[in-house]
Amino acid sequence: MSQADFGRLELELAEVEMPGLISCRTEFGPSQPFKGARITGSLHMTIQTAVLIETLTALGAEVRWCSCNIFSTQDHAAAAIARDSAAVFAWKGETLQEYWWCTERALDWGPGGGPDLIVDDGGDATLLIHEGVKAEEEYEKTATDNAEFQIVLTIIRDGLKGDPKKYHKMKERLVGVSEETTTGVKRLYQMQANGTLLFPAINVNDSVTKSKFDNLYGCRHSLPDGLMRATDVMIAGKVAVICGYGDVGKGCAAAMKQAGARVIVTEIDPICALQALMEGLQVLTLEDVVSEADIFCTTTGNKDIIMVDHMRKMKNNAIVCNIGHFDNEIDMHGLETFPGVKRITIKPQTDRWVFPDTKSGVIVLAEGRLMNLGCATGHPSFVMSCSFTNQVIAQLELWNERSSGKYEKKVYVLPKHLDEKVAALHLGKLGAKLTKLTKDQSDYISIPVEGPYKPAHYRY
Amino acid sequence: MSQADFGRLELELAEVEMPGLISCRTEFGPSQPFKGARITGSLHMTIQTAVLIETLTALGAEVRWCSCNIFSTQDHAAAAIARDSAAVFAWKGETLQEYWWCTERALDWGPGGGPDLIVDDGGDATLLIHEGVKAEEEYEKTATDNAEFQIVLTIIRDGLKGDPKKYHKMKERLVGVSEETTTGVKRLYQMQANGTLLFPAINVNDSVTKSKFDNLYGCRHSLPDGLMRATDVMIAGKVAVICGYGDVGKGCAAAMKQAGARVIVTEIDPICALQALMEGLQVLTLEDVVSEADIFCTTTGNKDIIMVDHMRKMKNNAIVCNIGHFDNEIDMHGLETFPGVKRITIKPQTDRWVFPDTKSGVIVLAEGRLMNLGCATGHPSFVMSCSFTNQVIAQLELWNERSSGKYEKKVYVLPKHLDEKVAALHLGKLGAKLTKLTKDQSDYISIPVEGPYKPAHYRY
Amino acid sequence: MSQADFGRLELELAEVEMPGLISCRTEFGPSQPFKGARITGSLHMTIQTAVLIETLTALGAEVRWCSCNIFSTQDHAAAAIARDSAAVFAWKGETLQEYWWCTERALDWGPGGGPDLIVDDGGDATLLIHEGVKAEEEYEKTATDNAEFQIVLTIIRDGLKGDPKKYHKMKERLVGVSEETTTGVKRLYQMQANGTLLFPAINVNDSVTKSKFDNLYGCRHSLPDGLMRATDVMIAGKVAVICGYGDVGKGCAAAMKQAGARVIVTEIDPICALQALMEGLQVLTLEDVVSEADIFCTTTGNKDIIMVDHMRKMKNNAIVCNIGHFDNEIDMHGLETFPGVKRITIKPQTDRWVFPDTKSGVIVLAEGRLMNLGCATGHPSFVMSCSFTNQVIAQLELWNERSSGKYEKKVYVLPKHLDEKVAALHLGKLGAKLTKLTKDQSDYISIPVEGPYKPAHYRY
Amino acid sequence: MSQADFGRLELELAEVEMPGLISCRTEFGPSQPFKGARITGSLHMTIQTAVLIETLTALGAEVRWCSCNIFSTQDHAAAAIARDSAAVFAWKGETLQEYWWCTERALDWGPGGGPDLIVDDGGDATLLIHEGVKAEEEYEKTATDNAEFQIVLTIIRDGLKGDPKKYHKMKERLVGVSEETTTGVKRLYQMQANGTLLFPAINVNDSVTKSKFDNLYGCRHSLPDGLMRATDVMIAGKVAVICGYGDVGKGCAAAMKQAGARVIVTEIDPICALQALMEGLQVLTLEDVVSEADIFCTTTGNKDIIMVDHMRKMKNNAIVCNIGHFDNEIDMHGLETFPGVKRITIKPQTDRWVFPDTKSGVIVLAEGRLMNLGCATGHPSFVMSCSFTNQVIAQLELWNERSSGKYEKKVYVLPKHLDEKVAALHLGKLGAKLTKLTKDQSDYISIPVEGPYKPAHYRY
Repeated sequence: MSQADFGRLELELAEVEMPGLISCRTEFGPSQPFKGARITGSLHMTIQTAVLIETLTALGAEVRWCSCNIFSTQDHAAAAIARDSAAVFAWKGETLQEYWWCTERALDWGPGGGPDLIVDDGGDATLLIHEGVKAEEEYEKTATDNAEFQIVLTIIRDGLKGDPKKYHKMKERLVGVSEETTTGVKRLYQMQANGTLLFPAINVNDSVTKSKFDNLYGCRHSLPDGLMRATDVMIAGKVAVICGYGDVGKGCAAAMKQAGARVIVTEIDPICALQALMEGLQVLTLEDVVSEADIFCTTTGNKDIIMVDHMRKMKNNAIVCNIGHFDNEIDMHGLETFPGVKRITIKPQTDRWVFPDTKSGVIVLAEGRLMNLGCATGHPSFVMSCSFTNQVIAQLELWNERSSGKYEKKVYVLPKHLDEKVAALHLGKLGAKLTKLTKDQSDYISIPVEGPYKPAHYRY
Repeated sequence: MSQADFGRLELELAEVEMPGLISCRTEFGPSQPFKGARITGSLHMTIQTAVLIETLTALGAEVRWCSCNIFSTQDHAAAAIARDSAAVFAWKGETLQEYWWCTERALDWGPGGGPDLIVDDGGDATLLIHEGVKAEEEYEKTATDNAEFQIVLTIIRDGLKGDPKKYHKMKERLVGVSEETTTGVKRLYQMQANGTLLFPAINVNDSVTKSKFDNLYGCRHSLPDGLMRATDVMIAGKVAVICGYGDVGKGCAAAMKQAGARVIVTEIDPICALQALMEGLQVLTLEDVVSEADIFCTTTGNKDIIMVDHMRKMKNNAIVCNIGHFDNEIDMHGLETFPGVKRITIKPQTDRWVFPDTKSGVIVLAEGRLMNLGCATGHPSFVMSCSFTNQVIAQLELWNERSSGKYEKKVYVLPKHLDEKVAALHLGKLGAKLTKLTKDQSDYISIPVEGPYKPAHYRY
Repeated sequence: MSQADFGRLELELAEVEMPGLISCRTEFGPSQPFKGARITGSLHMTIQTAVLIETLTALGAEVRWCSCNIFSTQDHAAAAIARDSAAVFAWKGETLQEYWWCTERALDWGPGGGPDLIVDDGGDATLLIHEGVKAEEEYEKTATDNAEFQIVLTIIRDGLKGDPKKYHKMKERLVGVSEETTTGVKRLYQMQANGTLLFPAINVNDSVTKSKFDNLYGCRHSLPDGLMRATDVMIAGKVAVICGYGDVGKGCAAAMKQAGARVIVTEIDPICALQALMEGLQVLTLEDVVSEADIFCTTTGNKDIIMVDHMRKMKNNAIVCNIGHFDNEIDMHGLETFPGVKRITIKPQTDRWVFPDTKSGVIVLAEGRLMNLGCATGHPSFVMSCSFTNQVIAQLELWNERSSGKYEKKVYVLPKHLDEKVAALHLGKLGAKLTKLTKDQSDYISIPVEGPYKPAHYRY
Repeated sequence: MSQADFGRLELELAEVEMPGLISCRTEFGPSQPFKGARITGSLHMTIQTAVLIETLTALGAEVRWCSCNIFSTQDHAAAAIARDSAAVFAWKGETLQEYWWCTERALDWGPGGGPDLIVDDGGDATLLIHEGVKAEEEYEKTATDNAEFQIVLTIIRDGLKGDPKKYHKMKERLVGVSEETTTGVKRLYQMQANGTLLFPAINVNDSVTKSKFDNLYGCRHSLPDGLMRATDVMIAGKVAVICGYGDVGKGCAAAMKQAGARVIVTEIDPICALQALMEGLQVLTLEDVVSEADIFCTTTGNKDIIMVDHMRKMKNNAIVCNIGHFDNEIDMHGLETFPGVKRITIKPQTDRWVFPDTKSGVIVLAEGRLMNLGCATGHPSFVMSCSFTNQVIAQLELWNERSSGKYEKKVYVLPKHLDEKVAALHLGKLGAKLTKLTKDQSDYISIPVEGPYKPAHYRY
């Protein structure tokens, strides 16, 4: 069976699990709202993303796609899409050079400029355009000592040789971006605050049906999945340290607790720390527990969480992984350059790093990058259907309002009634039945019978 | 031992469990910031509230207090406070007439007008003033067919005979109110929207350290406590229906699931419904399950949730209770007036109501009022310390800014750094240690080392 | 309302929750199998026990009853039984002298000798007869320095003054005893091993439907119930130490974990310790954690578990309680006699003991006796229905076979098919439906269609 | 990297997780107790088994090995063992013919007869010898219509052509077998009851540290692992039906509940059914729920649990799998022969079967065989270390007592002190510290300070 055939079979299974996307096809497909729209996506090229892509094309869009992580592509998903539906620039195990080349390829729609819309995850496509525009303005002036960022600049410079206004043209054409991660959204709000945001953005991450579902329930599912596939380790009885107790950390801590581990949380935020305590989890610093825990997982969205000096103090074969953000949550650079350290690759994305003095080693997953995508297959279809239905709705909104002036160069969230709609589309699959407000009850609490049911500040 | 002595002993135990309030005494006590302030509280007169009252007095305030529920007073707490610290108008088992008389007494500080500040729970003290002012303007005109509201109007009219400008004077003096319930806050926002709010209000309910703690973890504790004290029923193996899956409903559902019940949720909001499903709970309508469940608990903040026709279809000795809001979540009126129905009081706040045709009965707790306060002792001290520390901080804020013009006749929430402070004050008691951001990390994610750590829209 | 009336109302509620006992009344009542049988019970005089007593009388027995714990009697239950059904010698808060006097009274059926059957819990009725017979043989010779045991001997001696063959006559008449606790059963097996057992005994404790239900699920329910009623303490966020991880300890640890506590287990048995670890619990010694935990609960069935020196090192207001066995699990004697210690009774069965040097105190529940019976109402009806249906079946078996020679002076367990029958009687109430083996499946696994379904050594 | 090298790397990781086996090497290795012993194993040829094999060889044994399941071999584990330590006859995806050929090869030690000892899992090696002996006696007479059993007989007949006393010689040499599954043990007890057991057997399954660990915690880990690897399905929100609530079923139900599924149990045994209810699970028949559930998993050890008629009524893409026993728990024959049914292989061990009339399909894992071994890697090392340490101890016991007459042709369990020893060997790895009985406590409860701590009938 070809990779594409295999991808198609899994795509068909996933469609049954993604009622939100399939409902979008049913509701919007006939009117072809994306007719004429070019969409570039930079988002893990998995089976679930494939269903998203084919939902966009089913609504009339032309699509080009790259992944937003060097390890997250499922090659059979990419093959099926490349054969049947869209241009794909992604494979599992890209180098960083290849990764940024892919991003640039996905943005390059030929002479006519770039895409009309961007579906972003982590913000790398958005970043490339912003940096491109800056580079065109300050051609050759920029300097950086960040290895990955040098690659970005090289890619840009190479492009500018052909067309020194390439990114300005791209920016002109762009209607907007929808972004789905905490990290990417943070970048957008910073650009908005700095006044450097070049086009409208919809923050999909902060839809309740995204951040309180994908981040929480998705990670609750995919952390043990990644651990099991990478190491086969028994989780019960172990001590697991979860760094960070945001939505991702809450999902991870719940997963480890449920599997029979004893969970210790590290936090900077006293509110999240108190939430952890209320669930019976211990809250300590990494230093307190580094030598007695078995599994370490970072979920912070910050950098320098687990340093090489921490890893040196860990028990032999302690597992170190990241499910939060970039690979800089773990000090991979410090580990790789530690004098005399030895790397033993057990299998792809599972490495044992042995320190020369102690002969003791730690097991690092996915080279410090997102372990659920590197070692397993990411989040399951059902929860991704919630996230991606938000993406489709955000893309529709940007496209439909492209000439109305509704959206300025700012960051927006979707209105609550659309958030509630996304949830509603996923209830039937799980056999749920909603209660309806009576008119009398609706009046009593001053909430419309059809919703929205909560004020904007409600926390769920 | 006298009631007051017993109350004092329990007060001393509670102080050890309420580090936030004790910290307030330590931090603010020496400067006596409430010197000269008259505070009226309308809030369940429990042991925990007693610690709140004595924190207010320790900061220099004069205090008068009533309960906000006819069943929630713990008489030994009231006795200790009445003897040692403040005027108290509350006892367990008030009639509605007595209840509103108590509220009026707590607001009446004699010839000099009313209080400077109100600590409110459910909004009844605030309501009485607003209705009082209206009544003074439309003396004798108002009419209502709501039995409880007629009592309110009677109380007001009786007062006006003595001083026809009593409530106007009260309004003039009032600096503001801090309100801590979902229901009370809703009323405040409605008045703000209508332009009828007479003084500034701080919404304490929507502090994270209130609504995501007291409502959630408090109810998770006090629902089983109330059920056990009232009925001694085995929860394991039973089918429990939780009407509503907000913060209160989430706490109740978790408690019942953990105790071994099978939990079914009813919801109007598709997002909350999907959250319930992700926790393995079934989401159906009350009609679907009314005849097969054993325990029914309302948490909606709405009215007419469990009607007498539902109760007639329930299994014999099904338990019906409310932990959300007023007694109108359950159709007590329909039950009391059902032809031939027989009420058998097992013990105070535990009644079996037998229908004449089937001879089958339901067990209604606390006459449909808050069962955790009616049948048990409400939320435990530690979580109330979070809520009440918010109250103290809100009162301080209103009082300190009384002449600055900072607060208009609007509803405000406390800034996030104060919310985080409340949490931080509760970590030491539980042995937690926070991680500190490095300067470098702080720059990387653009978050101050000392917080606040999250954007305003963050949902926790 | 009189105590007896109140007890009757609660009895009627409990009957609905005790389908096993009610089924016994339906199945066996018409044939009056206990006609002519005198049954003495020594078992906590609670509402649930009242339903057991009236089941025995419904089957034709005459009954006399005492409690097996000085704090466990529910006075309204005793009142209802005393008024309506049987002679009761029990009240809440007996002295030890009164306790043993009650036991002696319950065994004394007048000139005709003692009971035909004993329902025992903890083995005190059985012990009194055995010691009585010994005492008659070694009149006045026995000596002991155990305070409680001296009381036993005094009671016996006083009785012997009236009839120096009283206990021999009692032994002659006795058909047998059914015993339902781990402690009582241990005593019986020791007497069997020593050859001193005077009559047949059925070990009801080791029916699966007793030890794996009452001990486990009963304590899971009643430990938090007792903690809440005695102290109102918030369990979430606390560190709870459970000493012992047998069936009782497993129930207690589950309850504390579910309520949001962090649980640490102490164990002597490596198998039970490994079970605790697999559930994510920490296993340490009491010394390791004595100064950092908040709640301590003994479940071992052994003595000297928490000593006064442990208590001195505990945090202020740490809670110390016992749910396992006698009050000697906690070193009450050491505590009471500690120089300068001060006892402050918060309310009955809740004492704060303050040490003179540190001014720090511990809160001891039920004076070190079973806290679920002393501070709350014991196990709920449904699970007690399982235990007590075993008791009724055991009593029937002993009585029916009283002349057949089937039972020697040994300890027996009920056959598995009766154990399965007890379970089956409780399924309908919870809406469960069993699957039936086909003839073909029955042959394939060599198990009868009607059971028993498991070999004797199966562990469930 | 070669398969053997990869296997060796994973073996080294597993050794760190298997402290019981490594302790055996340390304790017994120096004295080479298996010197001269030939051991044949028939047990899933996984990484964990590889550590077992090398423990046996480290103690002096010669070993030949085959798998006991056509899908369970991990080829890299087999390669490492074949290269370094023992003869292996196993690969992933054997045909039934190949499977039995492998078993026969593993038993054939050449002219000198068969093995001295057998390590068995499911009893197939033991069965082959017993059938071989029978066949030699009734050469050519046996007939059967079971397809797999015909293969067994063919293998035997082919062997007999070379040596018509082959199996008699094998039987003569055999010292005994240790068996570790519920199914294999059942067969042994039946042979014991029939008087047809040819050599002593030790029932390792009923060591507490096997059946209450491997069966329970192993499956709790490996059921979600298999589901995730095979289907990537989101478990949260789904309805999972677990057929059977023994140790395996308890582990599976716990795993599904913890992952956020709603769990329904089917049971024949009322005691196990009541246990399920006490955990909040619903107990119904398969017929009641077949059309509304999403995941079906059999754990019964019986046959004909999920029939093709059930599968036809299931929702589209319902998942059907077996983790209990042979592939006959699911009616694979009925499915394969259903007229017009279409099998679509998504990937190895994941098939979608589409019914011709409805076009609806079910997803069957591992062709109805053990899904945790077919779709994932079986149980993790730590819990298998418990099981396999029992195996090593049992093998040592049989071998050491081979001439003492201690073991007759019966089935034995290991004494409790060895069971406790196995547990004790696994505590240190998890950081646990045991409490020690004092002499005084030991006397009080009549339990030796060093154990065993429980009576034989104790259920844990």
